[in-house]
Amino acid sequence: MNDDEARVQRWEAWADWPLTGIALLFLVAYAVPILGTHLSGRWDHFYDVVTWASWAAFAADYLVRLSLARRRVAFVRRNVIDLVVVVVPMLRPLRLLRVLALVNILSRRTGTSLRGRVGVYVTGSMVLLLFVGSLAVLDAERDAAGSNIHSFGEALWWSLVTVSTVGYGDFYPVTTTGRLVGAGMMIAGIALLGVVTASVATWFIDKVREVDSQASTATRQDIAELGAKIDELHALLDQHGITTK
Amino acid sequence: MNDDEARVQRWEAWADWPLTGIALLFLVAYAVPILGTHLSGRWDHFYDVVTWASWAAFAADYLVRLSLARRRVAFVRRNVIDLVVVVVPMLRPLRLLRVLALVNILSRRTGTSLRGRVGVYVTGSMVLLLFVGSLAVLDAERDAAGSNIHSFGEALWWSLVTVSTVGYGDFYPVTTTGRLVGAGMMIAGIALLGVVTASVATWFIDKVREVDSQASTATRQDIAELGAKIDELHALLDQHGITTK
Amino acid sequence: MNDDEARVQRWEAWADWPLTGIALLFLVAYAVPILGTHLSGRWDHFYDVVTWASWAAFAADYLVRLSLARRRVAFVRRNVIDLVVVVVPMLRPLRLLRVLALVNILSRRTGTSLRGRVGVYVTGSMVLLLFVGSLAVLDAERDAAGSNIHSFGEALWWSLVTVSTVGYGDFYPVTTTGRLVGAGMMIAGIALLGVVTASVATWFIDKVREVDSQASTATRQDIAELGAKIDELHALLDQHGITTK
Amino acid sequence: MNDDEARVQRWEAWADWPLTGIALLFLVAYAVPILGTHLSGRWDHFYDVVTWASWAAFAADYLVRLSLARRRVAFVRRNVIDLVVVVVPMLRPLRLLRVLALVNILSRRTGTSLRGRVGVYVTGSMVLLLFVGSLAVLDAERDAAGSNIHSFGEALWWSLVTVSTVGYGDFYPVTTTGRLVGAGMMIAGIALLGVVTASVATWFIDKVREVDSQASTATRQDIAELGAKIDELHALLDQHGITTK
Repeated sequence: MNDDEARVQRWEAWADWPLTGIALLFLVAYAVPILGTHLSGRWDHFYDVVTWASWAAFAADYLVRLSLARRRVAFVRRNVIDLVVVVVPMLRPLRLLRVLALVNILSRRTGTSLRGRVGVYVTGSMVLLLFVGSLAVLDAERDAAGSNIHSFGEALWWSLVTVSTVGYGDFYPVTTTGRLVGAGMMIAGIALLGVVTASVATWFIDKVREVDSQASTATRQDIAELGAKIDELHALLDQHGITTK
Repeated sequence: MNDDEARVQRWEAWADWPLTGIALLFLVAYAVPILGTHLSGRWDHFYDVVTWASWAAFAADYLVRLSLARRRVAFVRRNVIDLVVVVVPMLRPLRLLRVLALVNILSRRTGTSLRGRVGVYVTGSMVLLLFVGSLAVLDAERDAAGSNIHSFGEALWWSLVTVSTVGYGDFYPVTTTGRLVGAGMMIAGIALLGVVTASVATWFIDKVREVDSQASTATRQDIAELGAKIDELHALLDQHGITTK
Repeated sequence: MNDDEARVQRWEAWADWPLTGIALLFLVAYAVPILGTHLSGRWDHFYDVVTWASWAAFAADYLVRLSLARRRVAFVRRNVIDLVVVVVPMLRPLRLLRVLALVNILSRRTGTSLRGRVGVYVTGSMVLLLFVGSLAVLDAERDAAGSNIHSFGEALWWSLVTVSTVGYGDFYPVTTTGRLVGAGMMIAGIALLGVVTASVATWFIDKVREVDSQASTATRQDIAELGAKIDELHALLDQHGITTK
Repeated sequence: MNDDEARVQRWEAWADWPLTGIALLFLVAYAVPILGTHLSGRWDHFYDVVTWASWAAFAADYLVRLSLARRRVAFVRRNVIDLVVVVVPMLRPLRLLRVLALVNILSRRTGTSLRGRVGVYVTGSMVLLLFVGSLAVLDAERDAAGSNIHSFGEALWWSLVTVSTVGYGDFYPVTTTGRLVGAGMMIAGIALLGVVTASVATWFIDKVREVDSQASTATRQDIAELGAKIDELHALLDQHGITTK
């Protein structure tokens, strides 16, 4: 890691909390107009301001990092998602990925067990995903012709049915935007299944290892104890005039 | 573990069986009115009494444990579910989690194999979950407008289709309560898939290990045998005047 | 294992092939009337005879084994499925579990790799399950009121959609028998997912182990080589008058 | 491996890139008429030529390899898929399996991590599968009676819903060809779930191993260090007149 990357990282450490805060504000500004459709015009203005301010903040952050980086082509390559989030208006909700940073911090605070931390992280991400996904699909589907998702409750139920890969088919998106959201939820669902299964499997393997302590695999400590015995032999021979090197 | 926690645990050991018995009674009092809708008023009274008595028993148990515990804030934190089950009437069916204690005992009696015990536990929990979930969804959906689950058979079929994440969509809940039950079933289904896969995977890994005994990982016994050889060397040198410490 | 069990096992070894043959005949007698509904009465008679003969063969096999066993209570306990298959007429298709013995033999012939053998076994079982399950559901649903599975093609498609837990809901069983078949297919589907995932996971773990040969876990051979070195030390000391025991 | 097989392999190495190029051309010739239904007759002719030329190329490749191989029965056995792709016209899309070779090369270029390479391979295969599967199902269903998949967007959405095993049932194939494509997608979906879960599980196991470095299993390096110590003992005894063999 050279000085160049270090400069970018100092900026990122400094900008981490402000950007997460702005992302949270954006979450509110994104959610409220979708959830409460009948708001006075004055508040509409407020949400517009937050949406534009958050866009400006993310764009500024990207530009600052780009200017600090010396290898600019490599930087653009590594941060494609950040660029896309700024440039493509439809992908604005992806700005909320920032909020995952909060979930990450939360999961780190829960203790030392990897499984516990993954549990907190997965639960947090799932709650965020279900909430944001439901908002996005509701926004896309509510007024579409032939759509069947018309309330936040229905959107949330659809999200859950999709992420769990149950898929009753009582609700489903009919618009392109809604289906893109659905595709994201399905991929998240497959990943969720993978993480849950993997957690259970590793818990299993650990338990089995504990149970048959007799036939358990040799640990580094076993080897260390064996090493100590051989060291004693060396010391012994040393004492009787057979000196080591 | 201090004296304080020990006192709570002595109470819990004492109250374990009575509470499980009361939970079983509650299961009957919960199931019968839902399954047999046309009962004489006298029996209705009986189910009300059992429901209230079980509530009183769980509330008393919680209060006794709270009064025995000295670190009360910590106690309340650790036993959030117990408090919720007592305070929120809608979550009464969660009292049946107690019956899982029976399943747990059953699974412990089946032998020493971890996989066998997990198998019994998972099967028992699944049967209980399908039964209670079907009752809960039938209770919520039966008289709802636009609902399609109207008999216990349909409710049970819906439960199975949901837990297995198949989700035909021939039956699905339309009420908020029914959908909350559905959410619980989906989460249980994902966990079930995880446990089954993990069981098979660990069985596989064990089998593979057995098969290639040649290239198997070094066990503690191998290390112990090696250690014995070095010990012999020590003893040998000792015999010839090169005394150990 | 005592003489008693040995006697039962000798019988089982002798009866293995005839019973598998009868099960295959029963498969034909079960499949043909469902697949080709318009057959002359003479053939109907033939299928009845095969069905009854196979029942008699399985009943006789069970009785012989019961009479050979000395610990009869233990025998009945261990062979509950065999008894159920004979006594309950509705569970006749379970007799086809016998055909799995053929699949098992086939899988053993394919080579030494555990994963390859499991692959053949899973594929074979799945083909058999899809075929028999489609027959059973078609038999149950074809003439039921409000049913939607009316041809073998539709039944096979439904089986596949169910086992893979996709569950479109274009076809679904409406009778109790059909739903019991469906329940079996779902459980098989969950098991299938588990086996496939476990196979891939163990393949992965093996590959990873191969790749990082540097940091791989110590094998028994490593330990054996180490042991040989210590043995040499013993021999050396022995040559110079420091005799072992 | 004998000379015979070496000759076949030299041919395969030579023919690899031309055949992959022809498969890509075939992909275009397969996709364009399905995606853009209203083309002038002159282009139709072009697609026919490409389709026939690719068939001829694959048939020629098969015949050359067959003639080069000395053990022809063994060759036919090992290359059943190649024969089927040439002989059965309906399975033409399977020729696109060739394009997977490109994905494979791409995945090898991404680096040394097995998990990263599997990730690239799975993503590439999935994109190809979703694209080709959507084309195949659209081709089969578009003009069928009672079908509900009528545009490429709908076909792609159906493919995604199927591969993820969600299965809403808003779209589903009704023709035999369409259902065969669906069966392939389901099997791919089950495999996908397996690979994702396995990747996460092995990542987990690796992480856990890193975390508890204290109790980690003994590595070959540990054993090597132990061996070095014993070697020193040998050298020491050698220096003092106790010569090794």
